[in-house]
Amino acid sequence: MNQENFSRPLSIRNVQVTDAFWKKEMELIRKEVVPYQWEALNDRIADAAPSFCMHNFKTAAKQNREKRELGRDFSEPVYTFRGFEALPENPAHLEDQFYGFVFQDSDFYKWIEAVGYCLAWAPDPELERIADEAVEIVCAAQQEDGYLDTYYILNGKDKIFTNIRNHHELYCLGHLLEGAIAYYQSTGKRKLLDAACRFADYVASYFGEEDGKCKGYPGHEIAEMALLRLYELTGEEKYRNLSCFFLNERGKRPYYFDSEEEAQNEKHKDAEALRYQYYQAHLPVREQPEAVGHAVRAVYLYSGMTDAARITGDESLYEACERIWKDVVEKKLYITGGIGATRHGEAFSYAYNLPNDTVYAETCASIGLVFWARRMLEICPDAKYADVMEQALYNCVLSGMALDGKSFFYVNPLEVEPKACHEDEDRSHVKPVRQKWFGCACCPPNLARLISSVSTYAYTEREDTLFVHLYMGSTVRKVLGRNEVTVRVESGFPWNGTVAVAVEVPDAIKERAEEAFTLALRIPGWAGGEEKEAFSLKGAEHLKQRIQDGYLYLSGDWSRTGTLELTFPMEIKIWQADTRVRRDLGKVAVTRGPIVYCMEEADNGSNLHLITLDCEAAGEAEDFTVCGEKVKALLLRGFRQKPVTDKGLYYPAQKAQKECVNLRLIPYYTWANRGENEMTVWIRKE
Amino acid sequence: MNQENFSRPLSIRNVQVTDAFWKKEMELIRKEVVPYQWEALNDRIADAAPSFCMHNFKTAAKQNREKRELGRDFSEPVYTFRGFEALPENPAHLEDQFYGFVFQDSDFYKWIEAVGYCLAWAPDPELERIADEAVEIVCAAQQEDGYLDTYYILNGKDKIFTNIRNHHELYCLGHLLEGAIAYYQSTGKRKLLDAACRFADYVASYFGEEDGKCKGYPGHEIAEMALLRLYELTGEEKYRNLSCFFLNERGKRPYYFDSEEEAQNEKHKDAEALRYQYYQAHLPVREQPEAVGHAVRAVYLYSGMTDAARITGDESLYEACERIWKDVVEKKLYITGGIGATRHGEAFSYAYNLPNDTVYAETCASIGLVFWARRMLEICPDAKYADVMEQALYNCVLSGMALDGKSFFYVNPLEVEPKACHEDEDRSHVKPVRQKWFGCACCPPNLARLISSVSTYAYTEREDTLFVHLYMGSTVRKVLGRNEVTVRVESGFPWNGTVAVAVEVPDAIKERAEEAFTLALRIPGWAGGEEKEAFSLKGAEHLKQRIQDGYLYLSGDWSRTGTLELTFPMEIKIWQADTRVRRDLGKVAVTRGPIVYCMEEADNGSNLHLITLDCEAAGEAEDFTVCGEKVKALLLRGFRQKPVTDKGLYYPAQKAQKECVNLRLIPYYTWANRGENEMTVWIRKE
Repeated sequence: MNQENFSRPLSIRNVQVTDAFWKKEMELIRKEVVPYQWEALNDRIADAAPSFCMHNFKTAAKQNREKRELGRDFSEPVYTFRGFEALPENPAHLEDQFYGFVFQDSDFYKWIEAVGYCLAWAPDPELERIADEAVEIVCAAQQEDGYLDTYYILNGKDKIFTNIRNHHELYCLGHLLEGAIAYYQSTGKRKLLDAACRFADYVASYFGEEDGKCKGYPGHEIAEMALLRLYELTGEEKYRNLSCFFLNERGKRPYYFDSEEEAQNEKHKDAEALRYQYYQAHLPVREQPEAVGHAVRAVYLYSGMTDAARITGDESLYEACERIWKDVVEKKLYITGGIGATRHGEAFSYAYNLPNDTVYAETCASIGLVFWARRMLEICPDAKYADVMEQALYNCVLSGMALDGKSFFYVNPLEVEPKACHEDEDRSHVKPVRQKWFGCACCPPNLARLISSVSTYAYTEREDTLFVHLYMGSTVRKVLGRNEVTVRVESGFPWNGTVAVAVEVPDAIKERAEEAFTLALRIPGWAGGEEKEAFSLKGAEHLKQRIQDGYLYLSGDWSRTGTLELTFPMEIKIWQADTRVRRDLGKVAVTRGPIVYCMEEADNGSNLHLITLDCEAAGEAEDFTVCGEKVKALLLRGFRQKPVTDKGLYYPAQKAQKECVNLRLIPYYTWANRGENEMTVWIRKE
Repeated sequence: MNQENFSRPLSIRNVQVTDAFWKKEMELIRKEVVPYQWEALNDRIADAAPSFCMHNFKTAAKQNREKRELGRDFSEPVYTFRGFEALPENPAHLEDQFYGFVFQDSDFYKWIEAVGYCLAWAPDPELERIADEAVEIVCAAQQEDGYLDTYYILNGKDKIFTNIRNHHELYCLGHLLEGAIAYYQSTGKRKLLDAACRFADYVASYFGEEDGKCKGYPGHEIAEMALLRLYELTGEEKYRNLSCFFLNERGKRPYYFDSEEEAQNEKHKDAEALRYQYYQAHLPVREQPEAVGHAVRAVYLYSGMTDAARITGDESLYEACERIWKDVVEKKLYITGGIGATRHGEAFSYAYNLPNDTVYAETCASIGLVFWARRMLEICPDAKYADVMEQALYNCVLSGMALDGKSFFYVNPLEVEPKACHEDEDRSHVKPVRQKWFGCACCPPNLARLISSVSTYAYTEREDTLFVHLYMGSTVRKVLGRNEVTVRVESGFPWNGTVAVAVEVPDAIKERAEEAFTLALRIPGWAGGEEKEAFSLKGAEHLKQRIQDGYLYLSGDWSRTGTLELTFPMEIKIWQADTRVRRDLGKVAVTRGPIVYCMEEADNGSNLHLITLDCEAAGEAEDFTVCGEKVKALLLRGFRQKPVTDKGLYYPAQKAQKECVNLRLIPYYTWANRGENEMTVWIRKE
């Protein structure tokens, strides 16, 4: 770890995204997903599993009010969005008690985080008013001592922190912090942040290495990175210390979770692997050799570890992060950027076991991988991290949401036969169409908070350098000492590889601009990385150029430099997998630029398994529209084997009869928007 | 159904098996499996799950003795076999209570059935003495009213028949009948048969269509066919009527199982499919369109239905049997003769869903398929039934037992990667090596009873005709009026296709032998069925020949006929699957004669998935020995793709490098006898 390499994400307010592709996604979040989710949090979505989230906060607030004789009654209905389609009130009469999953509070925290990001780039008084109102309710539920988790507030505070392995109080704390910080940073309003700090203070007084404090750690990680974010915002060392305590305690023997279990006289029959590896608690974090267990938990932990390594300069922790990163990327990553090969524990499977049809590849896990990748980039600007971040974002993450923002995937398969999803128990977790809302609704609000803050993944900065990790049209204000550089990016990504970059250096620093400002542009791995043909650059005659770790560093006389034109070759590429990935043997996948493609029944007829791809024939990209989404589809040549269905179940082998067919592949993230049908990413190779 | 077509199995005592292949298997059962299982029933096998079976009978007998003041104490240890390796007494002290699964009694019944068959062809006073002793204990457990199920005897008789959906009392009745009949037919001893009849009488007084009787039917079928066997032995119509009642009641609405559940105030959360289809109780049996649910239950039911159709002349029942048979054979049968594609419910999956690695293909299910096939043959001698019977017997059934008879498979996969069995939950039910004994030990004793009576599957007869369905060396006595024909078969099966048949006609009927005796020899489907090259026949100059439904009917002047020499071409055949079997697409399987072959790591190195088979190249059969078992192995040409493991998880597609390799395939039933290793039946096609 070299501190000089460190960079930090730009403030969300310093990047104005103008990009055709991403701005559309962001607006979808702001205009569709955020209002929809608000209704969902209030159980006002017909035909969807109720959330009970706001009900729980209101009930806790009401109880609190009665106990503490506060003035306000929070039981009245909460605002709904103007113009949002009229939805029925949930007809079920709810008692004054807790409903839903133990972690239901976190749905609101993820929502308010997304709201915070949206308000940063699109002020919206109505949205802010609703959010403020909701913050009032949530804060009113907080206990006098700072404790804030409605499950235990409503079910008995004497039991708090008795089952941190499974009861998510510290997970809720983490999401509260993330949400509160985002909302504060956008609006300047401290109310939720103060509440979050008070809960964090309470937790810090309860857990820690000091004698008499509890030696537990979260059963579902996220507090680790959230506390460090709070530390970086406030400078309060107690938050950093609490995060590091949680990280360091993890995996120590005897296992804390065992003692908790004994205390409750509860016997878990889980197999050894599920007992500890599921929670990444099987070994001290610095000794963990590979990515294991519940994939979302894992990448949230690794994100926190990476933050802690950067903040504390802990080399052994960083080594663990690098080791586990390598393990994921070299052995456990789907080509779509999905992670978590098995539904059993929603977990990583063993190396190279990457089934396409029984896969888990949870949307949240890929979101967590994006979190982690940027944190690795913050420590070391190496394009290998940005490549994975981009791969996950454009493919598995976006696949999690329908093109209209109204339905969501939890599981993102690479091969789907709808009949099997309905009738084969081993694939019953794979849905052939997206669903409206889930009882355990982690993915939709997680998508909302990531996409609404996507600009913070595109750019990081250090004192004199702006890193461009993802190409998206935007106007970036980079503070340079007491001045500001403005960088305007125009980008055809992900459909064409041309990027225009204009740098406006203020007059004040023009004379010494050469030393003052460096622009570091990522050369994507798919373009060829550091190979000569990986890009072409025009207009940089007056600049010094240097390539390092997949970044093109430009510095020099910016005042004499106009708009740079950077072009990456967006060619159709055909990929094979390491032969240890048994499921992909004899098959190929197709990409163009950052986009992974798939073949859908809607374009190619049913029985996709009978199709082979002619890898020798030239393909071409064509403009295509999937449910209103303008994309590049790929036209490729292949063969379709003639079905043999009249010779009995088994018949003497004979040469397959086949006909030449034109195949259309569409971007993976756009699949399943035209009804239930077959899909495959990996295609048999002719 | 044409009554003139009907045939019946020969009495086990009229066939003396001399066959090199089958006699060895039978002796393995008699000398290894039967003594071993006796020890297992008495919990004297170290390192194996205890059975508790004899303990339960002894405890029930003891309680019965106390209650009824009978003289004998059954708590003393039971005999063990002389010379059987010394095994420790189970160290656990057992209380006077019921242990193990509710159906544990059936383990003894299956054992005594196998003992009965063994005694028929190999008198053995020691075995008979032990069996008699055991029969004493079992009969001493029977209640005064005839009831006999130790679970309820020991747990409260007031609850009998309150959960026939899941508690197997009627299943135990079925196995008791099968065992008692077999033991009676071999030894002439009636004690167990009388007990079985008394239990059957008790059940007949409890269940039935008469007013006031219970309208339930077995949750696990077998009583249907067992009661019909008892009817055919005794001529007592009440047993036939009870069997038909069970068959006819099944699937009626409202569902009996639902009323049972209501009565117990027990709520099952099973999905609809598991609630009724699992038990084949979703529809009246005559209306069932396809094979569904738990595969063992299913084929036991279909066997009973087929018996009932024959005995009662019920055409609509027979149509259902034919319809479901067609469904199984055309859509749901593994090439090994395995059935039951999914571990979820150990059940049939939907048509053409035949995964090779997550398969269930329980040994017992294939055994049940053999039962059913012979019953279909009894109604109509069509080689299509015998083909499937043979396919299941030589492959999936025999695979269930190690070559030394000391360990067993429950699940018979067609593709195994041991690492996946250990680490992938979806394949954790697939064991890469056979196990010694199971807590739920249905398969080993089921194998014992089938193999020890295998001759009854080889031959059936009608008045003037002997059908040879399976070729195995044997001397057959066929009653012909008041005389007897002796048929001597010598066979090279399954390794070579030459069969010698000598018919000795008694002098008394020599003159009119032409009318008197017909020999019907099956022409196996794998040999070409009714095609011209399917067989060659020498020595039949004086006989009339006629081919029908895959049988060669020979009649005429037997006195002038010497030994017939029948030869079937045992060629290496390469098979493909219907293209709707997605898992087998682009793959082939290899057979020779009735034997299905597989490729094992022990012969071909690891990473079997990298191997392709050259289907054009000629292969050859060679003598080979697998753990002492002399077999024909196949030498075939193939290619081994060079592993690509150094280019990253995904890399640009390139032509695969491969080398020509010689492959050795071994009979599927011999796999996993040389330690844990990879195996596959389906091989990628070059």
